[in-house]
Amino acid sequence: MTDAKALVAAFADRLERRDWDGLAELLDPDVVYELPQTRERIRGRDRYVQFNAEYPGDWHVEPRVVLGDDHDGSLLFRWRLDDEDLLAIAFFEVADGRITKVTDFWPEPYEPPTGREHLVERW
Amino acid sequence: MTDAKALVAAFADRLERRDWDGLAELLDPDVVYELPQTRERIRGRDRYVQFNAEYPGDWHVEPRVVLGDDHDGSLLFRWRLDDEDLLAIAFFEVADGRITKVTDFWPEPYEPPTGREHLVERW
Repeated sequence: MTDAKALVAAFADRLERRDWDGLAELLDPDVVYELPQTRERIRGRDRYVQFNAEYPGDWHVEPRVVLGDDHDGSLLFRWRLDDEDLLAIAFFEVADGRITKVTDFWPEPYEPPTGREHLVERW
Repeated sequence: MTDAKALVAAFADRLERRDWDGLAELLDPDVVYELPQTRERIRGRDRYVQFNAEYPGDWHVEPRVVLGDDHDGSLLFRWRLDDEDLLAIAFFEVADGRITKVTDFWPEPYEPPTGREHLVERW
């Protein structure tokens, strides 16, 4: 797999199947994982795979959109864990057929600001 | 412009320049804008352009990653508004050279859960 789209699709599939060896094959040994919302960073394939393997609960990753070119990829996915059911996003950087960076976003629900009720509906 | 990548790049550029007529040209008349976090929806090009034109403050959109294929696009961008400075994301659907759907995500900072301090660093 040389382009980001194929790597991202395989990433989501192997994560969902808890195929940790298969996941590791997709990752550069020096992969960096970042969570901008919490300002957390994990360095290295071993620690990043361990982070996923240790993530508690019966969580599920269901891809909705997978995009990629020679350098970057993106994944929109449905995340389910107990009562949680939300859309989350990851962006990827790839080089030489491996994922070198994962940037993860967990957009949580919030109340809308006022002042735009004349334009919006709620669901 | 027929593919999503070019449409997404133009979308970000015209938004930043407050080129409302130019923005409207990129949008399907029946474009749907959704914010899953607040469960808000705006239907139609006119209302969606108005929503953007009315958005208060001296905000700035700076693209970081633009991806797209024949049907879908994604945009990772830096958003700045007063003290706010965050990475936000939009996904797009396109058809017949126009944007038919925009799904926007505003991931806000939060405190990390405990139990992974052995793997992560903070910044």
